Amino acid sequence: MSGSVFGNCFRIMTWGESHGKGLGVVVDGCPAGLPLCEEDIQTYLDRRKPGQSKFTTQRQEGDQVEILSGVFEGRTTGCPIALEVRNRDQRSRDYGKIKDLYRPGHADFTFDAKYGFRDYRGGGRSSGRETIGRVAAGAIAAKVLKELGIQVRAYTCSIGEISICRERFCWEEAGRNPLYMPDERAAEEAEQLLKQAMEDKDSVGGVVECIISGLPAGVGEPVFDKLDAALGRAILSVGAVKGFEIGDGFESARSRGSRNNDAFCLNKSGRIQKKTNHSGGVLGGISDGAPLIFRAAIKPTPSIASEQRSVGRDRQEVTMEIHGRHDPVIVPRAVVVVEAMAALTVLDLMLAGMGARMEWLHRIYGMEE
Amino acid sequence: MSGSVFGNCFRIMTWGESHGKGLGVVVDGCPAGLPLCEEDIQTYLDRRKPGQSKFTTQRQEGDQVEILSGVFEGRTTGCPIALEVRNRDQRSRDYGKIKDLYRPGHADFTFDAKYGFRDYRGGGRSSGRETIGRVAAGAIAAKVLKELGIQVRAYTCSIGEISICRERFCWEEAGRNPLYMPDERAAEEAEQLLKQAMEDKDSVGGVVECIISGLPAGVGEPVFDKLDAALGRAILSVGAVKGFEIGDGFESARSRGSRNNDAFCLNKSGRIQKKTNHSGGVLGGISDGAPLIFRAAIKPTPSIASEQRSVGRDRQEVTMEIHGRHDPVIVPRAVVVVEAMAALTVLDLMLAGMGARMEWLHRIYGMEE
Amino acid sequence: MSGSVFGNCFRIMTWGESHGKGLGVVVDGCPAGLPLCEEDIQTYLDRRKPGQSKFTTQRQEGDQVEILSGVFEGRTTGCPIALEVRNRDQRSRDYGKIKDLYRPGHADFTFDAKYGFRDYRGGGRSSGRETIGRVAAGAIAAKVLKELGIQVRAYTCSIGEISICRERFCWEEAGRNPLYMPDERAAEEAEQLLKQAMEDKDSVGGVVECIISGLPAGVGEPVFDKLDAALGRAILSVGAVKGFEIGDGFESARSRGSRNNDAFCLNKSGRIQKKTNHSGGVLGGISDGAPLIFRAAIKPTPSIASEQRSVGRDRQEVTMEIHGRHDPVIVPRAVVVVEAMAALTVLDLMLAGMGARMEWLHRIYGMEE
Amino acid sequence: MSGSVFGNCFRIMTWGESHGKGLGVVVDGCPAGLPLCEEDIQTYLDRRKPGQSKFTTQRQEGDQVEILSGVFEGRTTGCPIALEVRNRDQRSRDYGKIKDLYRPGHADFTFDAKYGFRDYRGGGRSSGRETIGRVAAGAIAAKVLKELGIQVRAYTCSIGEISICRERFCWEEAGRNPLYMPDERAAEEAEQLLKQAMEDKDSVGGVVECIISGLPAGVGEPVFDKLDAALGRAILSVGAVKGFEIGDGFESARSRGSRNNDAFCLNKSGRIQKKTNHSGGVLGGISDGAPLIFRAAIKPTPSIASEQRSVGRDRQEVTMEIHGRHDPVIVPRAVVVVEAMAALTVLDLMLAGMGARMEWLHRIYGMEE
Repeated sequence: MSGSVFGNCFRIMTWGESHGKGLGVVVDGCPAGLPLCEEDIQTYLDRRKPGQSKFTTQRQEGDQVEILSGVFEGRTTGCPIALEVRNRDQRSRDYGKIKDLYRPGHADFTFDAKYGFRDYRGGGRSSGRETIGRVAAGAIAAKVLKELGIQVRAYTCSIGEISICRERFCWEEAGRNPLYMPDERAAEEAEQLLKQAMEDKDSVGGVVECIISGLPAGVGEPVFDKLDAALGRAILSVGAVKGFEIGDGFESARSRGSRNNDAFCLNKSGRIQKKTNHSGGVLGGISDGAPLIFRAAIKPTPSIASEQRSVGRDRQEVTMEIHGRHDPVIVPRAVVVVEAMAALTVLDLMLAGMGARMEWLHRIYGMEE
Repeated sequence: MSGSVFGNCFRIMTWGESHGKGLGVVVDGCPAGLPLCEEDIQTYLDRRKPGQSKFTTQRQEGDQVEILSGVFEGRTTGCPIALEVRNRDQRSRDYGKIKDLYRPGHADFTFDAKYGFRDYRGGGRSSGRETIGRVAAGAIAAKVLKELGIQVRAYTCSIGEISICRERFCWEEAGRNPLYMPDERAAEEAEQLLKQAMEDKDSVGGVVECIISGLPAGVGEPVFDKLDAALGRAILSVGAVKGFEIGDGFESARSRGSRNNDAFCLNKSGRIQKKTNHSGGVLGGISDGAPLIFRAAIKPTPSIASEQRSVGRDRQEVTMEIHGRHDPVIVPRAVVVVEAMAALTVLDLMLAGMGARMEWLHRIYGMEE
Repeated sequence: MSGSVFGNCFRIMTWGESHGKGLGVVVDGCPAGLPLCEEDIQTYLDRRKPGQSKFTTQRQEGDQVEILSGVFEGRTTGCPIALEVRNRDQRSRDYGKIKDLYRPGHADFTFDAKYGFRDYRGGGRSSGRETIGRVAAGAIAAKVLKELGIQVRAYTCSIGEISICRERFCWEEAGRNPLYMPDERAAEEAEQLLKQAMEDKDSVGGVVECIISGLPAGVGEPVFDKLDAALGRAILSVGAVKGFEIGDGFESARSRGSRNNDAFCLNKSGRIQKKTNHSGGVLGGISDGAPLIFRAAIKPTPSIASEQRSVGRDRQEVTMEIHGRHDPVIVPRAVVVVEAMAALTVLDLMLAGMGARMEWLHRIYGMEE
Repeated sequence: MSGSVFGNCFRIMTWGESHGKGLGVVVDGCPAGLPLCEEDIQTYLDRRKPGQSKFTTQRQEGDQVEILSGVFEGRTTGCPIALEVRNRDQRSRDYGKIKDLYRPGHADFTFDAKYGFRDYRGGGRSSGRETIGRVAAGAIAAKVLKELGIQVRAYTCSIGEISICRERFCWEEAGRNPLYMPDERAAEEAEQLLKQAMEDKDSVGGVVECIISGLPAGVGEPVFDKLDAALGRAILSVGAVKGFEIGDGFESARSRGSRNNDAFCLNKSGRIQKKTNHSGGVLGGISDGAPLIFRAAIKPTPSIASEQRSVGRDRQEVTMEIHGRHDPVIVPRAVVVVEAMAALTVLDLMLAGMGARMEWLHRIYGMEE
């Protein structure tokens, strides 16, 4: 039960290691009839690709996805969709002492504790490359959602101490700068911060925010499969994420009921909506028709070039430095991963919720005259 | 798929509404041979009971649990354990306008949106009483963990703006004051804050912190079933929880790699441990041998006596006040719920992880000579 | 993971032992809006009740079901439905040597092998009373199906060597005789056979057949969750069932392709149907629009009064006789259990299949104008 | 939820169509430390390969498996193992009228009924090639079992009316003749039968039997996840299987309790065993220490060259003949598929059962001194 399955209805299984033959995902349960081609998925993968700015890994991985099954004549068939990205660069290299050391902040030690040994090449299964499967599957989920009028969009909300200013929020800007920040000035300041971190042989963290719009009210289940709980699990399962909050999140813990409650009202067309959205679009674990808004806290890249204390497999204390190409920040590359996981979660719950009413069963299985 | 199942190996299904005949849970997959009696469970239920202080509901619910199956001659048999708490007070009452109104901050509107109608009596399935099943099942999980040397303990970390002071931290104090705060002075200040909130016909939120000690390294799965992701889902599935963070959480997003990484070292007996615990006891989703530490942000009680704007089922805007007994804060009652969900999560992943190594299969299924 | 959960979408968890406080089931995922009362369920439970003829246990158990949650104002709410039957007769009795012996054909030995000990009172969890939860939940599933125009009906097909004659098949007769055989003459012969078996202190087996009519084409999933595979698992999970076949079943293994293939044709209204139904209503694991027909082979009651050789917990060989009230045949009481399991399976797959087409997602989640 | 996932602990997801780019499987939850190489899997795949005798397809598919992840330095790592077989022969061909017709006995019609359209090339997902993923994953499961001293072996028990004679049973012979029959004379007779069927442009069915030896008592769960129920589902999920029975199966329905019950006794070393094995190695759904024995009924190949009546997508009745290479019998190629599914099932339940006793948790997680 190594936990590489996500979702109940739209169910994916990812596989692959950083320096193995490749990485991929199988998507089981995609509705039949969705137009789909490799370009739909490649677009998402390209957004997580390193080498897009001086603050992300310079390696040109050029991850090319291949659809191996489940699509026929340009449409999904309802059968499993296998997606694969081959690792181009697998030449055996010298992992030197790394293979016998436990890098601080990495999963080297815990993998050994769990399995007795590990694939030490480039972090193996715990590498950031593991997200390739998530993003590829998420691209499909996002396309299904888009057909239903639902949009999932994430961006960098803060890097280190630099946060975006809500007044300057600009969607276009988020697509323009390499940090995916929807605030030009914050992006510039963050770039300065990153330069400094690199000079210091150090790294920084940050926060990603995600907004899901167009989601109808009624998605999510009342108890353990609340929409926010499912989103939280999805996002916290991404490596380096240390916190999740929805709506006002931790701020609501300092708020008051009179301020935190969102009053209901009617819009011009007489439909029920909320005057504010402190809840972040979810009440009792079920979407309330307002945009879903949540944030993920991402820790600083654990691979840093400065000297660190650690221990080896041989139970000896050592001093180590991690050389090579390392991003001083993971946050910008996590943006598309957050979008992918959010899309997977929302679609899975929408499919799960199709049987919520007798009336809906009649609508699908009702006898035609 | 109404989402009332939690866990894969230690699997529970909860049921019941606030004003129905009762509430309960069935626990499937509890190992055989655990000594268990009703008192073990009652102790936990009593901690979530209202009426324990002037800041929690004054109703004397006196929830009495009954074990209906799965225990024989004082030990669990390996078969499902059904636990039940009958509602004592079910007399039909006048729900007045409440039944036709959507209370702000509650799930009234979203239940209607999902199911077309709802059990409006006392919040129905979305009532805080829903946690009875969680706590009852969690008491069993906690007992299994205790037998393995693992302790799960939660407490109130902050109420509104009042936070505990780490220097004054005292476990005994957490058991003494009605707010479960491990800091006497903070508890006193918080009591003042709550009095003020009640006078203002308002409510406040807060933060619960939980520490799991004694957990061996190696628990949790590498990708989607990371220990922190599973905990996050578990905790976020509790009503009113709006945020979750592990270790330094959102603070790590403002930190640097050199500070956030925990150096490994050897303890006196030559075992590997960490010098610090910014990670909160988890690396790559797998427990690292240090105590697990996480926090949950809890929103202010949505039921407040002051006037609010809302809408009715008849699509008319209204002004409403929610009268009756309402806690000005949910946080203290959530403490035991957080413990319960944490215990359920950790045990479930420990059971799931038993097949992680061939050597362990041999240990269980190996041929005896 | 004691395996007391069935279904993914319409998910049930059963609990209870033969001589514990009671037995029951929780049903999670029932669509909201189904009219439901205790009588709907009681009717099914009464059919599995012993004491209905001289060939079934004479004890008047009178199992009364109580609905504890999930139903409000006469309709299901979408939340878990807890059903409970209390055991009336739990007085402590002398289990004598039985508790230390392994009865041939029973699960006494295997429970000990698995768990180290067992609840030996009346077979504990492996008693036939375990089916109470199945039947109670199945009654709800059957009611949902009925609303969709689908009928599930089982009957006794053979007892020992006595089989019904297809030419004399009569649905009404199946409801008239205590053996549920749709052939009066076969029922009379079977009664004679049973009398003889009782005189011989012996027991006999038999076959139950089930027909599901009104099922639309398209239910079931292509690979592991084929409709027939799911049905097979459901039926084989009933104690004493040793075989399952669909359509021509084992006979098809002796057939030829030219005979076994069902030709397609058009009916008068121009709809596609099959000229024959050797397949039993399923092609490639998916319903083909013809009635589903399957059979379950049920072994003779293992509890017999004649002398048997066995072994005790103390590893001593012994000779034993099982006295008390024992049915010389289980088959008639299994009829309603087979119906229940079939209904649960079909409904679960129908719910799972609601997301099979993009068009169906639009039908449920499509934007209203 | 297209149902391409099998197993809870040892969980696989298969993918691929007959004439797509390839087929494969991802195995999640394989214990770490199992020696594994491509040859281990290739051996199994070669056994399902067509073209091995004149009674199976003459095409030289030469399915070559590639391990893409989860194995490092010759051992499984505990992470998902992706296995892939590329289809060599994908040239676009003329599917002529086949694509618009519903072949009798095939899933053409039901796929269209479910999804609205289908991948008609060579049967798409419902082709026999779908079993490649099952067999590849099953080879791994079988290797884990073998390390634990458990052997899974299947063979052809009957073809058409020709059955093996138990007195002439010979394991070696099963490996010698192309029909996998452990009885030379029966194999010769069956060859004659198949020649005749081919001349008649017809096909025949048969029965596969499987024996699992070395399985300890205690595997399987008491209620819905009974070992025989899980096996039944696994086997019935293989295309063309129409029946499943364990031990005496349908014969037990004609038996008597005194004959069908297996008496317990002590063997020479004082261990409990059974004198007979009518139960087929399972009591109450849990293995009883005797060999597991079960049978699968397989229908005649639906693709036959003789004329058949059918209907097209255009709702017109037609007469059709299916030309091309078709096996007159599927049974011999199903033998290894049955073994694979049995191995997957047994291993999954063994992993699930590791948490059955508190004592076993202590054995894995107990504190070391």
